[in-house]
Amino acid sequence: MGSVQARMEAVLARLLPPAQVAPARLHAAMRYATLEGGKRVRPLLAFAAGEVGGAAADRLEIAAAAVELIHAYSLVHDDLPCMDDDVLRRGKPTVHVEFGEATALLAGDALQSLAFQILAEHLLAEEPRAQLEMVRTLAAAAGSRGMAGGQQIDLESTGTALGMPALEFMHIHKTGALIRAAVILGCSCGSLGEAEKAKLDRYARSVGLAFQVVDDILDYDASTATLGKTAGKDARQGKPTYVSAMGISRAREMAESLRAQAVGALEGLGARAARLAALADFVVLRKF
Amino acid sequence: MGSVQARMEAVLARLLPPAQVAPARLHAAMRYATLEGGKRVRPLLAFAAGEVGGAAADRLEIAAAAVELIHAYSLVHDDLPCMDDDVLRRGKPTVHVEFGEATALLAGDALQSLAFQILAEHLLAEEPRAQLEMVRTLAAAAGSRGMAGGQQIDLESTGTALGMPALEFMHIHKTGALIRAAVILGCSCGSLGEAEKAKLDRYARSVGLAFQVVDDILDYDASTATLGKTAGKDARQGKPTYVSAMGISRAREMAESLRAQAVGALEGLGARAARLAALADFVVLRKF
Repeated sequence: MGSVQARMEAVLARLLPPAQVAPARLHAAMRYATLEGGKRVRPLLAFAAGEVGGAAADRLEIAAAAVELIHAYSLVHDDLPCMDDDVLRRGKPTVHVEFGEATALLAGDALQSLAFQILAEHLLAEEPRAQLEMVRTLAAAAGSRGMAGGQQIDLESTGTALGMPALEFMHIHKTGALIRAAVILGCSCGSLGEAEKAKLDRYARSVGLAFQVVDDILDYDASTATLGKTAGKDARQGKPTYVSAMGISRAREMAESLRAQAVGALEGLGARAARLAALADFVVLRKF
Repeated sequence: MGSVQARMEAVLARLLPPAQVAPARLHAAMRYATLEGGKRVRPLLAFAAGEVGGAAADRLEIAAAAVELIHAYSLVHDDLPCMDDDVLRRGKPTVHVEFGEATALLAGDALQSLAFQILAEHLLAEEPRAQLEMVRTLAAAAGSRGMAGGQQIDLESTGTALGMPALEFMHIHKTGALIRAAVILGCSCGSLGEAEKAKLDRYARSVGLAFQVVDDILDYDASTATLGKTAGKDARQGKPTYVSAMGISRAREMAESLRAQAVGALEGLGARAARLAALADFVVLRKF
């Protein structure tokens, strides 16, 4: 895992425009938003999915970087005052606090463009048509029927009590879509049959949901432990969570059941899928 | 011209997610931002460039729509309070006034994703590799070394007196890059040799700059005529313009000279380029 994370740091540093190139402040903000940050869960998933289909690492790193750039842009915009109004991210001031709102807005916009640019300008698949399909997959996952749509639902549901189907619909879009895209892009860099791809897609759906359920549990735990409150930031903002919808113990059961589903989906893929299985464990058992 | 505009309205209405589909409010905002608006200069340029290379209209309309979606997203974000803080656009309340800031932000984000999605999911060129190059072209034109970069320079230059080279650098990015992309994508839908493409690219550079010079002149004229002031909104906002940098009469000369350069670049292309020539005239002689 550490090797993928170190590799991604280097790849992203190379793919992002240098901070000295004009407009320097914009490029500095884009680098600030993307580098030295995060668990790189999506790149880890892309690499692990690539392993199943024997994809070359120099292709995987580009596909993974494209997904990570979309993720980074979404965090910058999500932190803006008109959205979650967050001032800290990964222990650092958020991009708009550090660079101002307008530059943060443009940095997010330009990170999204860059994701599609790198996906189109490197050779990632034997068939260019397969590579166009990767562009389509990432765009759909990022757009109004994917991640951006999920954020809209999140926005509208703040302060309301969502039932389980609505909560699930929101998260399938907000986090699930991009996590699925990471897995799909990773396996698209290699060669996999349709049946194998379908298994990986089922895996990705379960892991994507598990990721969000665990996020909600961690938010609940952190606040209970460190703030002495019964609910964390999401609850304080009136955001519906799995914990608020089903209670903490059922949420924990759900995370475990999604982990088991994810691992189960990999049946028949053998040792090539060992890293994906380990990542399902990591997503559910992580403490941060 | 009218037929391209009517066609684009129908195409965009078809490509944008229906306003009834969830998340409905986001989709309504995306449609509000894109439909019934604008001169559709970029689609007109894409269609006219396609005519030079004999491109099919059903391909051109997709390429033109992708460029127009990028343009529409940039207007939504540009109007936000942290940017130009505009409340009116094309005689209607801006997207954030109508839908709120958060939804406007997400609508812009999702319009950008949609542009790349449609560019990847329709058949636009015989060679998929050429179509990947179209994705790359549009992404680069939209990004930090294209339109978003130009907006950053605009942001930083407000309140300062830019010299001509800096002003030109800004506009080559802010408006020029996307106008060039419209022409390049239009000719990529057909078949053109490299020498012909180079002519169209020279044409596009001149038209792109001319477009901005004329915008500045119109802003100056409008305010002089209707507000009785010596300068318009840009000047009030402290934005450097061609008029403020070189005076109104030299700005008019420059617009005319760029028009002549644009038409000159088309030499040797014959009647196939008649629409492009007419568009250069339209861009410079327009009164709105």
